[in-house]
Amino acid sequence: MLHLHRKKLVSLFDQSIPSVIFLQSGKIGYKYNTDTELPFRQESNFIYLTGVTEPDFACAIDVQTGEYTLFSPQRDTQYAVWHGYITPQETYKKQYEPDVIAFDSDIETYLKKKNPKVVYCLTDAQAAFIQNLGYQANSESLIPALTDCRVNKSEWELEKMRMANKITSEAHSLVMREAKAGMKEYHIKGMFESVGFPYNVYEQAYNGIYAAGKNAAILHYQGRESELKAGELFLVDAGMEYQGYAGDITRTFPVSARFTDAQAGLYQACLNAHNACIKAVKPGVKMEDLHLMAALLILEGLREMGLVKGDVDELMDANIFALFFPHGLGHMLGLDTHDVGGYKKGVERIDRPGIRFLRARRELEPGMVVTIEPGVYLIPALLQPAFDDFKYKKYLVKERILPIMDIGGIRIEDNIIATENGYENLSSVPKTIEEIEHERS
Amino acid sequence: MLHLHRKKLVSLFDQSIPSVIFLQSGKIGYKYNTDTELPFRQESNFIYLTGVTEPDFACAIDVQTGEYTLFSPQRDTQYAVWHGYITPQETYKKQYEPDVIAFDSDIETYLKKKNPKVVYCLTDAQAAFIQNLGYQANSESLIPALTDCRVNKSEWELEKMRMANKITSEAHSLVMREAKAGMKEYHIKGMFESVGFPYNVYEQAYNGIYAAGKNAAILHYQGRESELKAGELFLVDAGMEYQGYAGDITRTFPVSARFTDAQAGLYQACLNAHNACIKAVKPGVKMEDLHLMAALLILEGLREMGLVKGDVDELMDANIFALFFPHGLGHMLGLDTHDVGGYKKGVERIDRPGIRFLRARRELEPGMVVTIEPGVYLIPALLQPAFDDFKYKKYLVKERILPIMDIGGIRIEDNIIATENGYENLSSVPKTIEEIEHERS
Repeated sequence: MLHLHRKKLVSLFDQSIPSVIFLQSGKIGYKYNTDTELPFRQESNFIYLTGVTEPDFACAIDVQTGEYTLFSPQRDTQYAVWHGYITPQETYKKQYEPDVIAFDSDIETYLKKKNPKVVYCLTDAQAAFIQNLGYQANSESLIPALTDCRVNKSEWELEKMRMANKITSEAHSLVMREAKAGMKEYHIKGMFESVGFPYNVYEQAYNGIYAAGKNAAILHYQGRESELKAGELFLVDAGMEYQGYAGDITRTFPVSARFTDAQAGLYQACLNAHNACIKAVKPGVKMEDLHLMAALLILEGLREMGLVKGDVDELMDANIFALFFPHGLGHMLGLDTHDVGGYKKGVERIDRPGIRFLRARRELEPGMVVTIEPGVYLIPALLQPAFDDFKYKKYLVKERILPIMDIGGIRIEDNIIATENGYENLSSVPKTIEEIEHERS
Repeated sequence: MLHLHRKKLVSLFDQSIPSVIFLQSGKIGYKYNTDTELPFRQESNFIYLTGVTEPDFACAIDVQTGEYTLFSPQRDTQYAVWHGYITPQETYKKQYEPDVIAFDSDIETYLKKKNPKVVYCLTDAQAAFIQNLGYQANSESLIPALTDCRVNKSEWELEKMRMANKITSEAHSLVMREAKAGMKEYHIKGMFESVGFPYNVYEQAYNGIYAAGKNAAILHYQGRESELKAGELFLVDAGMEYQGYAGDITRTFPVSARFTDAQAGLYQACLNAHNACIKAVKPGVKMEDLHLMAALLILEGLREMGLVKGDVDELMDANIFALFFPHGLGHMLGLDTHDVGGYKKGVERIDRPGIRFLRARRELEPGMVVTIEPGVYLIPALLQPAFDDFKYKKYLVKERILPIMDIGGIRIEDNIIATENGYENLSSVPKTIEEIEHERS
């Protein structure tokens, strides 16, 4: 199936001149100037084109013929002693299906044979490597072309993303059933991550957020020490990486069996926004319009609860939503958690509170995968100054907001494929108040 | 206590000219060209001098006066929204006890005031930063001086290392009691690492090795999938990082209640070497002599088992030990797992099988912490060619070795401080065959 990725990429280049697309895979990193290895993760574009998740490979595609050559590293006895089995080249040939398998020491010979007018490279460092061998290198065209390819996912990719979401959903469901008052955030992290092990998944797509109570009001909270307390909420934003592809789901649930009234009010406002945005996903819809739809629904919920006052359109114009929902509605998802292609070339961020952090601003197309993740938070660093700011204070019901500041925040996030006719929701974790209270009791 | 580290460092520089020691802390790294943060770990020298484990700090020491200035990063409201609480400078002042606390934006003003003839820097990149501000920078003297400081541990450091070893010992002891046939290697990893959580330890000092059966013959095995099987051995080489300081312990135990005879024979050979080397630790002893002592004892054990034959001195001269014990006996331990100072300037590695991989070749001094970790392995990539090699074959009893190849390997590792009078063993995990069989039954 990966030959389709390479074919798509090659079609974006001028095939009238002899040229080569060349990529080096990731290498193992080390802790500062020590020999302690950092965990290895393959470079995403290299996965997209080759499926290879090991370090020290390279690949080349002849743009005129489409011929695909994979260069594997040469390993010696010492490698076997320290790192294990040496894979024969025939095995790599079978596994990765290149037209030609060669050793990394053959790159120079390969280029001599092809004698390309230009070699398209991933990075300046890789371009310098090619230039040192005496060829002209271009490190500006390849990444935009790969981005164009990667933004609409292939069936091969969607299968991996379904699996990443399946495992991630399983972990969220487990945590929602098993979390108990008295546990620490780190217990939940351990419980969540261990769900991946039987699937050969040991890497998270990103540093998960496990936030008890008011910690949820810190958007990228990374603490691990706080205790889950009865009466409070617990927010989990975490996802597995399956064969390079990210899952990215968020759920918020009460530590006790039921939501309090205020928690339920905020939760329902967030869920209304979440559901409406997912339903609206289809080709041609713009992410920034979905963001504004979510903002409006959240404001309506807050107004019903009596936390904000005034005409909803006026509240929108005054950007009151951004005090409670200060991040973007969602982002592209794929080989990277914040995947490539959120902004087309030349498109700028919208300079407006909240929506300025939106990581994807473009019309959805079939095969794009996005997260839909509205949130409602009570963030002291935003609300305290707003209470005293003439632009905001008249819309905020301070005496109703202050008593519920400790709720922290709510976020509800699913992963959605835009399809020809609408959408497919990859995520499957209990989400309504009823479903969640059923799991918790 | 850290002022003693800084004082020791300053004393190694020429105090007759105005100069400054300048270090920048580590920064957060990202997954290739994405915004996915990699786990942060502070640069070790920065921990040694400041105790600061957060990113984006810098520090300067005036070599003539010893005055210590800490530069903290300036954080804004957006930081609070995404990452949480902004620590006031007074809190940093109390916590880290610098003579002066300043912001990172004050570095230029600081240098203008000091007008140093030379600024000693950690890396070329940091030196370039200083040169851009118009001062002369030297990136060659600071690392050797810091290495001289760090190689003999202070009481402050030894306290942290005792704690890293206490938690690491607890995890090894738990695993030795609780591991069961049918579990996977990843289960044991999860069990081991979770012991750190209540101590606020979420980072391992290095990628732990959890090797079932013959996987133990791959020295840096990183698989996670194999099952623990009755009748086989299980090797765990893993250690916690406590406030920057590494623990590094290895134990090997039978998955069943008892060792088989062959397993016990190999284990006892390894343990004899391990015990003898620890007992020999004292100031003035050379690591390479301990390595050779271990090699001799291992050969004697193998000879008693009938796996090798011939005069032991002859076996030593023929480097037969390196076929079974192909790595170094141990290494410096501290802020890094393979800590600094293993080789004094100008000392070369010994060009001889096995011992060539020894990471520390110097006379031990009080306050040095080393690992003692002999191993005995049955590695196909080494033994198969040796069976056919005229230099080795006459010493190897092939028909006795082949039937036990699946045992894989054994390593036993403790962490040892060299003291004025001998040594202190930081590690405390069951180790004799009797003790282990007691834990396993």
